[in-house]
Amino acid sequence: MSHNSFGHLFRITTWGESHGVAIGCTIDGTPPNIRFTLADIQAELDRRRPGQSRYTTQRQEADQVRVLSGVMPGEAEGEYISTGTPIALQIENTDQRSKDYSDIARRYRPGHADVTYDVKYGIRDYRGGGRSSARETAMRVAAGAIARKVVPGLVVRGALVAIGDIWIDRARWDWAETANNPFFCPDAKTATRWAEYLDGVRKRGSSIGAVIEIVAEGVPAGLGAPIYGKLDSDIASGLMSINAVKGIEIGKGFAAAALSGEDNADEMRPGENGLPDYLSNHAGGVLGGISTGQPVVARFAVKPTSSILTPRQSVDADGNAVDVMTKGRHDPCVGIRAVPVGEAMVACVIADHYLRDRGQIGVPRS
Amino acid sequence: MSHNSFGHLFRITTWGESHGVAIGCTIDGTPPNIRFTLADIQAELDRRRPGQSRYTTQRQEADQVRVLSGVMPGEAEGEYISTGTPIALQIENTDQRSKDYSDIARRYRPGHADVTYDVKYGIRDYRGGGRSSARETAMRVAAGAIARKVVPGLVVRGALVAIGDIWIDRARWDWAETANNPFFCPDAKTATRWAEYLDGVRKRGSSIGAVIEIVAEGVPAGLGAPIYGKLDSDIASGLMSINAVKGIEIGKGFAAAALSGEDNADEMRPGENGLPDYLSNHAGGVLGGISTGQPVVARFAVKPTSSILTPRQSVDADGNAVDVMTKGRHDPCVGIRAVPVGEAMVACVIADHYLRDRGQIGVPRS
Amino acid sequence: MSHNSFGHLFRITTWGESHGVAIGCTIDGTPPNIRFTLADIQAELDRRRPGQSRYTTQRQEADQVRVLSGVMPGEAEGEYISTGTPIALQIENTDQRSKDYSDIARRYRPGHADVTYDVKYGIRDYRGGGRSSARETAMRVAAGAIARKVVPGLVVRGALVAIGDIWIDRARWDWAETANNPFFCPDAKTATRWAEYLDGVRKRGSSIGAVIEIVAEGVPAGLGAPIYGKLDSDIASGLMSINAVKGIEIGKGFAAAALSGEDNADEMRPGENGLPDYLSNHAGGVLGGISTGQPVVARFAVKPTSSILTPRQSVDADGNAVDVMTKGRHDPCVGIRAVPVGEAMVACVIADHYLRDRGQIGVPRS
Amino acid sequence: MSHNSFGHLFRITTWGESHGVAIGCTIDGTPPNIRFTLADIQAELDRRRPGQSRYTTQRQEADQVRVLSGVMPGEAEGEYISTGTPIALQIENTDQRSKDYSDIARRYRPGHADVTYDVKYGIRDYRGGGRSSARETAMRVAAGAIARKVVPGLVVRGALVAIGDIWIDRARWDWAETANNPFFCPDAKTATRWAEYLDGVRKRGSSIGAVIEIVAEGVPAGLGAPIYGKLDSDIASGLMSINAVKGIEIGKGFAAAALSGEDNADEMRPGENGLPDYLSNHAGGVLGGISTGQPVVARFAVKPTSSILTPRQSVDADGNAVDVMTKGRHDPCVGIRAVPVGEAMVACVIADHYLRDRGQIGVPRS
Repeated sequence: MSHNSFGHLFRITTWGESHGVAIGCTIDGTPPNIRFTLADIQAELDRRRPGQSRYTTQRQEADQVRVLSGVMPGEAEGEYISTGTPIALQIENTDQRSKDYSDIARRYRPGHADVTYDVKYGIRDYRGGGRSSARETAMRVAAGAIARKVVPGLVVRGALVAIGDIWIDRARWDWAETANNPFFCPDAKTATRWAEYLDGVRKRGSSIGAVIEIVAEGVPAGLGAPIYGKLDSDIASGLMSINAVKGIEIGKGFAAAALSGEDNADEMRPGENGLPDYLSNHAGGVLGGISTGQPVVARFAVKPTSSILTPRQSVDADGNAVDVMTKGRHDPCVGIRAVPVGEAMVACVIADHYLRDRGQIGVPRS
Repeated sequence: MSHNSFGHLFRITTWGESHGVAIGCTIDGTPPNIRFTLADIQAELDRRRPGQSRYTTQRQEADQVRVLSGVMPGEAEGEYISTGTPIALQIENTDQRSKDYSDIARRYRPGHADVTYDVKYGIRDYRGGGRSSARETAMRVAAGAIARKVVPGLVVRGALVAIGDIWIDRARWDWAETANNPFFCPDAKTATRWAEYLDGVRKRGSSIGAVIEIVAEGVPAGLGAPIYGKLDSDIASGLMSINAVKGIEIGKGFAAAALSGEDNADEMRPGENGLPDYLSNHAGGVLGGISTGQPVVARFAVKPTSSILTPRQSVDADGNAVDVMTKGRHDPCVGIRAVPVGEAMVACVIADHYLRDRGQIGVPRS
Repeated sequence: MSHNSFGHLFRITTWGESHGVAIGCTIDGTPPNIRFTLADIQAELDRRRPGQSRYTTQRQEADQVRVLSGVMPGEAEGEYISTGTPIALQIENTDQRSKDYSDIARRYRPGHADVTYDVKYGIRDYRGGGRSSARETAMRVAAGAIARKVVPGLVVRGALVAIGDIWIDRARWDWAETANNPFFCPDAKTATRWAEYLDGVRKRGSSIGAVIEIVAEGVPAGLGAPIYGKLDSDIASGLMSINAVKGIEIGKGFAAAALSGEDNADEMRPGENGLPDYLSNHAGGVLGGISTGQPVVARFAVKPTSSILTPRQSVDADGNAVDVMTKGRHDPCVGIRAVPVGEAMVACVIADHYLRDRGQIGVPRS
Repeated sequence: MSHNSFGHLFRITTWGESHGVAIGCTIDGTPPNIRFTLADIQAELDRRRPGQSRYTTQRQEADQVRVLSGVMPGEAEGEYISTGTPIALQIENTDQRSKDYSDIARRYRPGHADVTYDVKYGIRDYRGGGRSSARETAMRVAAGAIARKVVPGLVVRGALVAIGDIWIDRARWDWAETANNPFFCPDAKTATRWAEYLDGVRKRGSSIGAVIEIVAEGVPAGLGAPIYGKLDSDIASGLMSINAVKGIEIGKGFAAAALSGEDNADEMRPGENGLPDYLSNHAGGVLGGISTGQPVVARFAVKPTSSILTPRQSVDADGNAVDVMTKGRHDPCVGIRAVPVGEAMVACVIADHYLRDRGQIGVPRS
């Protein structure tokens, strides 16, 4: 079975294959009277767009989005006001090189979903990885641009914190840096190391994994739907749905397993507006599945892409042993472009929970 | 908002507070003609039951489950045959010591959901942690006993792999060992180290975290619902919903971020029955969100409980600064009892996806 | 497949067979701080309870409900305050006469779900009709008592408007009358006719159908989730889910098909509070799937029960021709007891939509 | 709140306003390897298309559908094979005459959703009725073309059975006739009466309602998800979601209320393949919410459109009293074009339940 919708009250449904005519999404549940511009969406897409540096895939996609429904025009061109009806976004695919994939029409690339899609469906659009390609994530990023508008004051930002085993130095964390290098790296020094490192990876036709951290600020306290719609459960589900993700953490994550109760729990002292001040944020902004009002901090691990130049043992659709290597245009580190995608997923989850608690209609907006 | 149901076609809905009259769950979607016994369920519950060793909470709960609907009687007492209608399971709470919690009726224990429940709901059953207590997980374990019956040949087992920073030696992994020590530890030597270590933690009135690994075997290939109902997304969501969980991994998890594409991707060679043989399982049994047929391997990290004897800075419901320490009966390592809970969540997810692909009625059963 | 939950944010999940140990429901999504009493629920159940007159089934069920979770105690015994966590309600079955049904263990009563349950599930609890019995509706009525509390000012009332082809005289409609006769009839004169008529039906061992009208007042304008969660769609789904229902109408219903546009549309004139006054209510309180603020008026038709004394041609589970007649205790007109059930379903739908628009937490309450 | 998805495993999500750029839908859950052609979809759309006769709206829409995803190309142009991934369908709007609606930008047409959309959302696309227009139903019809392919042997047909109070003569029912007149009328004689009658209605600038009957044959027995996902509940919900619908019936519908148990229940005698033969079909193919294997028969009542030339009392968005009459292009009987829409909804429901019981992957296909 397939399930291509995410969210309950703020729900996105995506469609489209990597080499199909287009990709798109329908956003259901945007409250009415939310103002946004085409530029808002395009800006997010541009952060994800391939072909922007030599460290990401060389496929050139303009990724120009169109808004097809759910809005009334604003005052200027490209300005929109949501009506509360479903918003359809769409991007034409313009730079498919299907022949790049013809070699693997019937071969299974190890580490890719080729084999599992064939096992499950008995048929697959192999071109460009079809539906299993990360191309689909462009629509999540587009939807995330609107999700960000649903919660007043919400700011969701992402950063790469590790490539391979080269981690940033948190003491040098500067959000402004993430816009100054091709890696969304908040630590300028580490960005330089990564550049050099990835040049080597790319030239070898190899690939490497990465870890991304997403921080959401301005999250109202009290969001989350215990027991099975916990805020962190939904964030985990959303991040795990991104291509090539193999691990999720909230707050201290796996490191919390090695902490004592005294060291891990975030102490409190009197605060304002009925909320305490927290002396730390090991919890990552979520306690008992509900937001505390502190920054929500999540991390996810992206495995290295399996689209590499090294021949690997595999099988073909007829069950014969074959070697597979992937030519064509690929990311040496797919984790880089996952940063805006992770931001979008977290934004969508928070928007969804905001509406579930506050209602879609009774939501104050600018 | 609250959301207390998990799953789509195999769906469990739980209810009940830690110190309420009872706890229960409704299992909707069990295919008809599945045979199970009260002993099947009780056996799973007994693995989770508190008061079994000095390393777990001393609350004595008989945790005797009753089946109230959804079955016809089998031949012997305690034997049941599912009818396809909802199965209600229920456990009476017998050993609540509500006065143990009277100190914290209006105090927020750091690291617990006390404060977030109050922020969200404005009212909470503080007794024993109310709905946020891990008592609720008993019902998941009960439901998991039935989930295991849905997929012929499915075996789901869990083991503790780390307490604090003391990890097992994987080379000595022996599933049979997990039944020989109070820790579900598959490595006898490490179990001994943990016993000594935890004695110290317990005596200090402190707590420590843990990492649990769940392995599901006999998972048919092809299960999972891309893009947003991926098998690993649902597993991540289910495991993250367990109390005190802060991290989830599938396969290599975060370690995959430090691997190259050559090292991470699982090579294949010709196999049987239309499926390849895999030369490794770094993927953890899931590729593109769909099961490969290999063991599904997931890990989750449990933070240390915040119910400790050390006084900690906090606030009360009136916003005053207070110190909070928790007396009463607590787990020095709540991760231990989470093992059967993790197994149950994974079993429920796999059962759900099995039915989504194969249908609830056309499912072959023993 | 089975699906035993109804609603999105205010969601009820029921379980239990007619002759099982008990029946119950879980109500998920009740906002916190809603006050209710056991008597509130019991009062609704008592309106539905069998054995109250010679016109309804003679099964004697005390139908005493228990609240098992989701509440803190109020000041007096039987008073509760919702915590926002799931509320479990339960009723023990005390008066099953399973041997009354032993004749039909393997026979299919025409017009009943016996045959379809066997076709679908391959196994059924035949005792008392098992899960397909109207016994399940007691839990809906219980849940409806709480649903009514969710929307401030909501009043949902039902009345029988026809038994067989004997319709009430709408000109004599008096809600107070519905409590004065065994039929929920708002027209005293017609109630007398029905009494005489049904005596004949009952003595003949026959049965007859009925039409019930539900009117909800105090419904805020603007509720409903176009296009597929329209208020009237959800009401239709909820009413159609009641046993033996074969038709649903909103407002003028089928009569609207014979009206001209001039005669059917409800004209408006200026009103108060941003809402118009309507000069009529042919729409039944719903326009475009959204409530207008006028009374929501729905009707449903209940077919005659097929549990009658006349032998009818049928087959048994082995495919042999048999005659079936049902002895035991039955309703000559099952529609009578459906009145509180219809009220409950409409109340649940309105509560659900109220929360979907206003949010479960930001809901003003008494 | 808005909710624009319908179905569980076979789920359609629609978007688009009457005068927006385009309208579209995403079909999630189509099993893989289903073959269909553009002509299959176009044929269904052409049955619904406006401007086909003087009895339906004169808006000229080519309604040419495009398939944008979810398929691999078949052998010939316009032939497709589903891959199991979401299928996006889209139709450009080409003949919007927005100025036709400028008069009512701030006026509320009685009987239309103008006022309720403004109350709910505070903003609406008034052009052509925006999202509340029946234009959206084109996408349901397109999706229905694919739904029909999911269940082997399924045939879903609709017919108009009444316009105003002029009913067909069932004794003359001939499905072939429905293609010979502009009314989907199965009774040639009545079609002639309707032509004459509607000419008068149209010339008067008035409108009239209608009743449509949908018959689904080849429905496997055993489909439906009791208690709250009953086949007839989902059909009722789907039909009620169609614009202007005010009543739903299954089988005998409201007439069943006037029948005795002896007359209403469908007797059975031994049949084949484990299913009985039924001596009648008053149940309309559904018993206890589950299909019997007999034709599923549903009817729905469509109210007269309120877009008429007669001035009616109303208010405007500022609360002033105004008269409203609608010029522009309208249907004197919107029920006519609802026939293919009703067929599509029933097809979608049956496809959904087929997959819920048989699984999306284990479905035999041609």
